[in-house]
Amino acid sequence: MSEIFERVTIVGVGLIGGSLGLAVRRGTLARTVVGVGHRQVSIDRALEMGVIDEGTLDAAEGVKDADLVVLATAIGLITAIGEQIAPALKSGCIVTDVGSTKSQIVRRMTSVLPAGVHFVGAHPIAGSEKRGIDAAETDLFRDTTCVLTPTDATPPDAVDRVRKLWEAVGARVSMLDPEEHDTILARTSHLPHAMAAMLIATLTDVDGRFVGTGIRDTTRVASGDVNIWCDILLSNREAFLQAVDGFSGRLDALRRAVDTADRSALAEILARAKTRRDGLWPDGSAVE
Amino acid sequence: MSEIFERVTIVGVGLIGGSLGLAVRRGTLARTVVGVGHRQVSIDRALEMGVIDEGTLDAAEGVKDADLVVLATAIGLITAIGEQIAPALKSGCIVTDVGSTKSQIVRRMTSVLPAGVHFVGAHPIAGSEKRGIDAAETDLFRDTTCVLTPTDATPPDAVDRVRKLWEAVGARVSMLDPEEHDTILARTSHLPHAMAAMLIATLTDVDGRFVGTGIRDTTRVASGDVNIWCDILLSNREAFLQAVDGFSGRLDALRRAVDTADRSALAEILARAKTRRDGLWPDGSAVE
Repeated sequence: MSEIFERVTIVGVGLIGGSLGLAVRRGTLARTVVGVGHRQVSIDRALEMGVIDEGTLDAAEGVKDADLVVLATAIGLITAIGEQIAPALKSGCIVTDVGSTKSQIVRRMTSVLPAGVHFVGAHPIAGSEKRGIDAAETDLFRDTTCVLTPTDATPPDAVDRVRKLWEAVGARVSMLDPEEHDTILARTSHLPHAMAAMLIATLTDVDGRFVGTGIRDTTRVASGDVNIWCDILLSNREAFLQAVDGFSGRLDALRRAVDTADRSALAEILARAKTRRDGLWPDGSAVE
Repeated sequence: MSEIFERVTIVGVGLIGGSLGLAVRRGTLARTVVGVGHRQVSIDRALEMGVIDEGTLDAAEGVKDADLVVLATAIGLITAIGEQIAPALKSGCIVTDVGSTKSQIVRRMTSVLPAGVHFVGAHPIAGSEKRGIDAAETDLFRDTTCVLTPTDATPPDAVDRVRKLWEAVGARVSMLDPEEHDTILARTSHLPHAMAAMLIATLTDVDGRFVGTGIRDTTRVASGDVNIWCDILLSNREAFLQAVDGFSGRLDALRRAVDTADRSALAEILARAKTRRDGLWPDGSAVE
């Protein structure tokens, strides 16, 4: 594997940033990996774990001379840090991110970065029930999908180098425009999160004594960080509301089938869902 | 462990019935375990696996002389088989089941069983992504909850013996009246199933390329058997519709918070759900 970048700076060395650092260093995909953190203890830990070659608390200092900057902070901080580091970036630098929504970030970043610096929005669809640098692992991105969201204004060469990086750490790379990304992820990620939270909200206190593995798995994502999820849903309002309305329409149809005891309509609704789910996860069938 | 019953007949030796047979035989909770199946190959396999001592395809023959009969078939068959075996049951026999809804079954069984035979409704909240006798395991019920649903007419002694059996195979036993059971399970099991199916239904074809572990787990139960789930939802219509309406009201509030960009309202909704979920499953936190 040859170097794709000379100097990569990762701002935010938590689960995602830390795992990326490990994978980049293992693959020798950059000559130097610099980490920017907001606490010295995280930087020390990242150095100790071999996540980064150098670390600093000073973002402007950390991104100087970088030819790739990865904004891997919580989604709500990405554009603010982008603005902050913009003056320190060298010409030709590529900036990318790992945010779960893309339209707002791409629009804002494109407007704040200086001429000669290009933004390539990215969203690695990977996660873990754990958080923070200690949960970082080299193979976090292996066999996952990473979406890149270039616009007409993004130089193809910049997109290509970011794509090569994600492919080199094991991800399948897909291209979507930012709005398309947000529309799709509203259905595949943001809606499931909201549904999980509302399922939990529907439970009474006594219900908790009568839960099985079904509702446990169905609601797992409702344990996600509240602030991050506020940022995600509020930065993708329109697409999220459309997804909710699509869902509600389907729920009405199911409700009607049960209400009228229309077994064939109900069976058709459930069978269509089962067929589709079994197609997406052939090994993950379930009864309960 | 001493014998609780002389002769236990399990009608339906699949995952649940087979696991119960294994656990009863391991604990020597009955002198003889008889299995009733509808295919000889299942009976042969159950004998070979040590699930039962004797097996037959003839339900009336199988339940003769039993002092406990466990109806462990698919939920839609329970009352029909109950009617079929009723004339063959000896006086003093206790009949129980493992159905996921209880009001209809308890009502029907109470009316079809002869005098001197008592029905104790049961619902072991245990399952697996697998089905059938080959998936049976001795410890399936360990640390799970089994709900018994006696009515005012059920003799306490019959309830007590069924309770002892479930406790002896490792389950925590809770008592609910049948309607209360169905109301609670509508929220903890039937609603999550419907939500999982509707989340899958909301996806477009292209969305399947952008799915992570969140939606995978959120929708796992949508792979459940369509006929069984039609039986469950249609045998619990009223409570299910109430659960759906409770859910829809909460979803409306979340929708409104996002629509009006009311971050504090949204954060409160998500935080309440997270707190409750973390309380129910302290080890199962999640971000994505």
